[in-house]
Amino acid sequence: MQKKGILLVLSGPSGAGKGTVCQGLIKSSSSMELSISVTTRESRPGEENGKNYFFISKEEFHQMLEEDQLLEYAKVYDNYYGTPRRWVEEKLEQGEDVLLEIDIQGALQIKNKFPESILIFVVPPSINELQARLIRRGTDRDDVIQKRLGCVQGELQEIPKYDYIVVNDKLEDAVDEVTAILKAEKCRPKRFSLQKYLQTGGLS
Amino acid sequence: MQKKGILLVLSGPSGAGKGTVCQGLIKSSSSMELSISVTTRESRPGEENGKNYFFISKEEFHQMLEEDQLLEYAKVYDNYYGTPRRWVEEKLEQGEDVLLEIDIQGALQIKNKFPESILIFVVPPSINELQARLIRRGTDRDDVIQKRLGCVQGELQEIPKYDYIVVNDKLEDAVDEVTAILKAEKCRPKRFSLQKYLQTGGLS
Repeated sequence: MQKKGILLVLSGPSGAGKGTVCQGLIKSSSSMELSISVTTRESRPGEENGKNYFFISKEEFHQMLEEDQLLEYAKVYDNYYGTPRRWVEEKLEQGEDVLLEIDIQGALQIKNKFPESILIFVVPPSINELQARLIRRGTDRDDVIQKRLGCVQGELQEIPKYDYIVVNDKLEDAVDEVTAILKAEKCRPKRFSLQKYLQTGGLS
Repeated sequence: MQKKGILLVLSGPSGAGKGTVCQGLIKSSSSMELSISVTTRESRPGEENGKNYFFISKEEFHQMLEEDQLLEYAKVYDNYYGTPRRWVEEKLEQGEDVLLEIDIQGALQIKNKFPESILIFVVPPSINELQARLIRRGTDRDDVIQKRLGCVQGELQEIPKYDYIVVNDKLEDAVDEVTAILKAEKCRPKRFSLQKYLQTGGLS
């Protein structure tokens, strides 16, 4: 019996290691797809349409918005980014699980529009470790790092709105936990069709 | 940080294989304890107090009942059986997970008294397979088997009251699923203390 996939949303403070956890998950599962965003920004050399992003015009973006075709969206500088509802729903219908890495505001927008999504908050093992990771990563200036750390206290207040929290200490353990969450969510009674069970004489 | 254990309640139709799944779980985990019931029936040769059951008098049983010391109880013929709240709570406080195999009425009583318990409904892969298992088990007479099968339709109606449903087709997969459920439930935000996280500088 073909069952619908699950939309897994990973978010959390910058530097928690969401991206690395996502990569680990995609590697470990053959039926998991990383969500592809639409964006109005221009493609950069090496980027492929339909792989890194769906590149669309501002007119197309606004039409998608009007037609409620975006599970969430954000404006960054002059460009828009969003998660296309139809693409996600098609994958789920095909039985694929869709993985989405996104900031906290985006995650909460998605839960609102798509309540059956599963929100996972990824935290570093400690605030000190978070700071160390941001410095080690070397992509942000000192004042940006301080700003990010200043946001963390507020971001952590959103944890109760999430379905799960994963402490990303050892990457392997964090991937294991997200994998367990996915497996557990597939055992929810609302995903079980009693009618089908009785009609077909079983599930296998 | 020592975290409280989880009370996992496995129930479902007779013949679904709850007992085998429980044995598999106990074997695969070092921090899981099988709940021990109190009973007013006499011990049989080979049974040990505090291992198979806690053997108590009817007076003691009624006192436990009055003091709300039983998470559930049932009368079978002239004897009483129950799940002792204090024993379960002590184990959970020590960080052990407690596993309880029980009929559907008992499971629903427990959820009522102890809402943080996790209820798992175990079903056979099909009704036909359930019948085959009951016959193969050879412990029940034909009319008892028919009676059990007659109950199943009503029992399946209780699935929505459960937290999870596990289809016990291959034992190994069923044990894996329950293990994943336990791991996922340990990632619930309500088990995460933000205060501790910020105070100790982390969780490790």
